[in-house]
Amino acid sequence: MANFGLHTVCHWLWGGGWLAKLGAMDFAGGIVIHVNAGVAALVSALVMGNRKGFPTTAMPPHNMTMVVTGAGMLWVGWFGFNAGSALTADGHAGMTMLVTHIGAASGSLMWMIIEWRRFGKPSVLGIVTGMVAGLGTITPASGYVGPLGGLVIGATAGCICFYATQYVKRTLKIDDSLDVFPVHGIGGITGSLLTGVFAAKSLGGLGLADGVSVIHQVSVQALAIVVTIIWSAGMSLLILKVLENRLGLRVSADEEVQGLDVVLHEETGYVDL
Amino acid sequence: MANFGLHTVCHWLWGGGWLAKLGAMDFAGGIVIHVNAGVAALVSALVMGNRKGFPTTAMPPHNMTMVVTGAGMLWVGWFGFNAGSALTADGHAGMTMLVTHIGAASGSLMWMIIEWRRFGKPSVLGIVTGMVAGLGTITPASGYVGPLGGLVIGATAGCICFYATQYVKRTLKIDDSLDVFPVHGIGGITGSLLTGVFAAKSLGGLGLADGVSVIHQVSVQALAIVVTIIWSAGMSLLILKVLENRLGLRVSADEEVQGLDVVLHEETGYVDL
Amino acid sequence: MANFGLHTVCHWLWGGGWLAKLGAMDFAGGIVIHVNAGVAALVSALVMGNRKGFPTTAMPPHNMTMVVTGAGMLWVGWFGFNAGSALTADGHAGMTMLVTHIGAASGSLMWMIIEWRRFGKPSVLGIVTGMVAGLGTITPASGYVGPLGGLVIGATAGCICFYATQYVKRTLKIDDSLDVFPVHGIGGITGSLLTGVFAAKSLGGLGLADGVSVIHQVSVQALAIVVTIIWSAGMSLLILKVLENRLGLRVSADEEVQGLDVVLHEETGYVDL
Repeated sequence: MANFGLHTVCHWLWGGGWLAKLGAMDFAGGIVIHVNAGVAALVSALVMGNRKGFPTTAMPPHNMTMVVTGAGMLWVGWFGFNAGSALTADGHAGMTMLVTHIGAASGSLMWMIIEWRRFGKPSVLGIVTGMVAGLGTITPASGYVGPLGGLVIGATAGCICFYATQYVKRTLKIDDSLDVFPVHGIGGITGSLLTGVFAAKSLGGLGLADGVSVIHQVSVQALAIVVTIIWSAGMSLLILKVLENRLGLRVSADEEVQGLDVVLHEETGYVDL
Repeated sequence: MANFGLHTVCHWLWGGGWLAKLGAMDFAGGIVIHVNAGVAALVSALVMGNRKGFPTTAMPPHNMTMVVTGAGMLWVGWFGFNAGSALTADGHAGMTMLVTHIGAASGSLMWMIIEWRRFGKPSVLGIVTGMVAGLGTITPASGYVGPLGGLVIGATAGCICFYATQYVKRTLKIDDSLDVFPVHGIGGITGSLLTGVFAAKSLGGLGLADGVSVIHQVSVQALAIVVTIIWSAGMSLLILKVLENRLGLRVSADEEVQGLDVVLHEETGYVDL
Repeated sequence: MANFGLHTVCHWLWGGGWLAKLGAMDFAGGIVIHVNAGVAALVSALVMGNRKGFPTTAMPPHNMTMVVTGAGMLWVGWFGFNAGSALTADGHAGMTMLVTHIGAASGSLMWMIIEWRRFGKPSVLGIVTGMVAGLGTITPASGYVGPLGGLVIGATAGCICFYATQYVKRTLKIDDSLDVFPVHGIGGITGSLLTGVFAAKSLGGLGLADGVSVIHQVSVQALAIVVTIIWSAGMSLLILKVLENRLGLRVSADEEVQGLDVVLHEETGYVDL
């Protein structure tokens, strides 16, 4: 009975228990972070609705050099995130870092190639979005797969997440302003499934558990993903609805035009001196 | 006699000798760096006097995105600083990093909460200043205390340094332009004293030396702080007075209006192309 | 015969074979990266020709705060590059990091001092260029020399690369827009030669191979450098000529004035919202 306290409830809510029991492989949080965040973002975008002007007005980043600076910091910071999940500074952490790097680079290149062929010109914004897609997608696999896995998973991410982004933004016209669902959500799902494939020793990975086949592992990964999607969508909806009732989710249309920096923080990004 | 050479003098001047003999605890330089720098900044601000226009003209950072970028680099860089002081890549370094992270985060949140309640709106500038306060304050304690110590020390920093900043800027009207004294100085003093408390095993720390009580340790910390304040104030005053006599400390009023970038370096931050 | 496949050809092309056989010392890629890149840059600048307006129009960086931000990221990132070449997280990696830091700092200071004496004012752009010179120059030596070597090599870099930059830009009027040849190329050559000197135990280094004198080692370094220069110049010329014939190397004069961001990527650095 002593065990059935707050700790058990938290553990159960957090999902660590069933993920471990299932035998799902999620090295640095592809399911826990990226699938979860992606689904929460989609639900939030649907509940909150689009920004004024979307999708008729173009809303590009206002400072591309800051986008690239941030992307560089993200790429490097991700090494800490993925390799740090090895919990020690050894060869396993080193291989995790290499796989992460390959995943980011191949996601980046694949996105660039697709954009180049489709629109005639590659864009820096596409290259860094592909990088984030590669990073999010390689995360669950990073400590289980080898360089080959990193390459295939990253390139797959650059391709699938590109089309997912187009679909969400242009076809469904959902204003997920940072493409969190198509990049992190779809990327996290893709990476979590492919972890079960490329973790196999024959494909350069560390190997699956004794007696577990690739098909079995991929099924377990799929089950973990489905449960996470249901859980995350339900909880996000609940939280958003409570917030909407208590505090409201959106500022007024006037305040939205004025901008949240000024309205909510009385700050502006730039001050002319 | 061989020992009494330049090395001994340097060591004595630097203070390493008496700090160690006292038994003062200063993991990554709270006393040596932050108290020292904070006091030197206060003395410098007093000797140099205020900038033209202070405090009647508002002098906000001209580019808030650069402030946040720099704050992010500082937060991550601080891990190297504090955890690196463990001198090896092991669990002790890992715990130091965690404690540093908790200290920064809780300093940040506390500053935000106070600002929110006092001014009605939280600001990004406040959040990053609270982060620096948390980082400076946790520095002396980072390798000695546990997560609980990190949380309490960081939150205390966010609170004390906020009021210290208001007091120095608004009440005393001293133009310490980057809030070095109220953030690093007061933060360093706070953190160095609390190191003596939260290093205790009963509060999750690594423990004090055998037979040393919390009260004894805090007294030793206080003595080290007082000696550092006197030393740093005296030496800073001496250095500033010598510089004032030899080179002068300020540019002319005209040059100050024109800006030091142009006057001293013939450079401008931005060039329109 | 099995050995004489693609792998052997690649290895021979890459040069790893003869560099190792010669006994050339190149810890983190001074010859392989910096000499190679510097020579390739010079050849590229000569083959492509100057930008429209060079050297009569001033072409300063348009945003000095981004220059300094990038320089900071480069300095920190270089630690991973050099210290990571120790291939393990130990004292050797730590010393490599320290030597790298000293090299960057002394390159920076030396460049500043020279500029200050010559032009009357030190510039931030000079300080960060000196830093890159120090970093590129210390790279081949970083894991073989001690702090003294780092100091001398860095300061030498700040001096030699400064004059090389002036010579290439002002006397030869070659538009190597980021000073890659004078900074990385000349720096890499200087550092690779001095590695043979400061690796000696008597100068604080890890020591040369048994029975190898400083003169012998410096000769080996010089030979490796000469071969690399010839190789890199030849291959760069070949690649550039093939590209020129197949794709063309330059946009039209009109497009150059319009800017490559818009012409090739349909993006602009900044969007006014």
